[in-house]
Amino acid sequence: MSTQNITPAEHVAQVLASFDESKDPRLVEVTQAAIRHLHAFAEEVGLTRDEWMAGIQFLTAIGQKCDDTRQEFILLSDTVGLSMLVEMMAHQAAAGTTEPTVFGPFHVDGAPRRPHGASIVETELGGQPLVMRGTVSSLDGTPLVGAEVDVWQTAPNGLYDVQDDGQNEMNLRGIFTTDSEGRYQFTTVRPVDYTIPDDGPVGDWLGATGRHPWRPAHVHLVVSAEGYKPVITHAFDSESNYLESDAVFGVRDSLVVDMTGGEAVFDVVLEPV
Amino acid sequence: MSTQNITPAEHVAQVLASFDESKDPRLVEVTQAAIRHLHAFAEEVGLTRDEWMAGIQFLTAIGQKCDDTRQEFILLSDTVGLSMLVEMMAHQAAAGTTEPTVFGPFHVDGAPRRPHGASIVETELGGQPLVMRGTVSSLDGTPLVGAEVDVWQTAPNGLYDVQDDGQNEMNLRGIFTTDSEGRYQFTTVRPVDYTIPDDGPVGDWLGATGRHPWRPAHVHLVVSAEGYKPVITHAFDSESNYLESDAVFGVRDSLVVDMTGGEAVFDVVLEPV
Repeated sequence: MSTQNITPAEHVAQVLASFDESKDPRLVEVTQAAIRHLHAFAEEVGLTRDEWMAGIQFLTAIGQKCDDTRQEFILLSDTVGLSMLVEMMAHQAAAGTTEPTVFGPFHVDGAPRRPHGASIVETELGGQPLVMRGTVSSLDGTPLVGAEVDVWQTAPNGLYDVQDDGQNEMNLRGIFTTDSEGRYQFTTVRPVDYTIPDDGPVGDWLGATGRHPWRPAHVHLVVSAEGYKPVITHAFDSESNYLESDAVFGVRDSLVVDMTGGEAVFDVVLEPV
Repeated sequence: MSTQNITPAEHVAQVLASFDESKDPRLVEVTQAAIRHLHAFAEEVGLTRDEWMAGIQFLTAIGQKCDDTRQEFILLSDTVGLSMLVEMMAHQAAAGTTEPTVFGPFHVDGAPRRPHGASIVETELGGQPLVMRGTVSSLDGTPLVGAEVDVWQTAPNGLYDVQDDGQNEMNLRGIFTTDSEGRYQFTTVRPVDYTIPDDGPVGDWLGATGRHPWRPAHVHLVVSAEGYKPVITHAFDSESNYLESDAVFGVRDSLVVDMTGGEAVFDVVLEPV
């Protein structure tokens, strides 16, 4: 019997060649790239059998934690910065436009349309009153009339309405439309720092790697206007303790605003399609 | 408001830096390498939001398919060649030794010790009778006396005993010991080609990428001897239809043997520790 020890490079070439019969070129492109990087990773670190098994068990536990209201794989994607990277690549707008950040799992379709200046507080849970306002304009400075500003945020207890039976449905959510000068404005309460759900395998892993599960206080905004690229973004509170260590890597300096005086100004710049 | 669009390279650097407080250097090494390769993969293919979500859903379905008797993440690892790569790296024996291949999920601890030449067939399900034999020797040719040869295989219906209520526990399993000339021998039935479990998300993905779920007929062996590196391997049937397209990439030319004449000779070479 001849023995001929195959190299890792020859091995991965065999694996990649196994997709030659596929009828779906994009699926194969993504699959082959994923496999190349997976093999390169395992070889680079010299992944042991025990570490491989620990990885299998980690991914299995993540899958088993998922249910109708919990998506632990999105949490993993968020906490390794993948979600943010996908958002950055999807946005691809010119310099000078408002930077995007993560969408997150707490947006709800069909939030109420509210008039200029209205409050989004439907359930009183204390907190510091805040008026948030700004303009939506084009890259050349033109104010955009009738642009849509969809906002949502946590209550002062650190929970979104969908996480908390004590809040009205649609508490701290609303869709606003910019006025004749491209301005939006609404009344709310100042957002607070809060933790991502950390009672599952991703939380355990964060702890084991020396990280914390906190996100800096923020208001979510999706801003869109006819003929412009929409932006999914946040306005972050400049006084938050976690601006330098957001668990999901969503902070951008340009998105940090002063919320201390009961008023926050957050202007948005969009690029024409 | 100033905008300063951060690059993917700056973004991943932030993510990697988040592990600076960890007390577990190896966990961080593996984690950081995984994250670097994950980001490089996503950037290389320009992963879209929809593709990202399809990936999240794929991994979630895999996790949810796992239970006490089904490990769909190991199946994924097998079918992308990762399990084989980990085995190759774990083995690290000199050229001239028997090549390793995947361990697979069907080994059972505590298989019966059987005398030289005994049959491992405990449940008659037809098939072609086969005597399998060989020597276990050191790299320098010295026969190894008292080496242990742990074997297991599918029945002629393509199922292992643990997958099939119709088979006796420990059907087609046994542990043999080499004789005074380093020889082992047992009686069995010729193994058959069979499919990995393909009724889950991994099977769906194989289909979508144009691959099949078949493994070429083989007998599993783990061969160990005091003072030598053990080897986890297979003896493959040279007449199999799937030697060129094993679903788990375990075939090595050196492991393919003629089983047509009712006899198969599979010699094993081990390296001193």
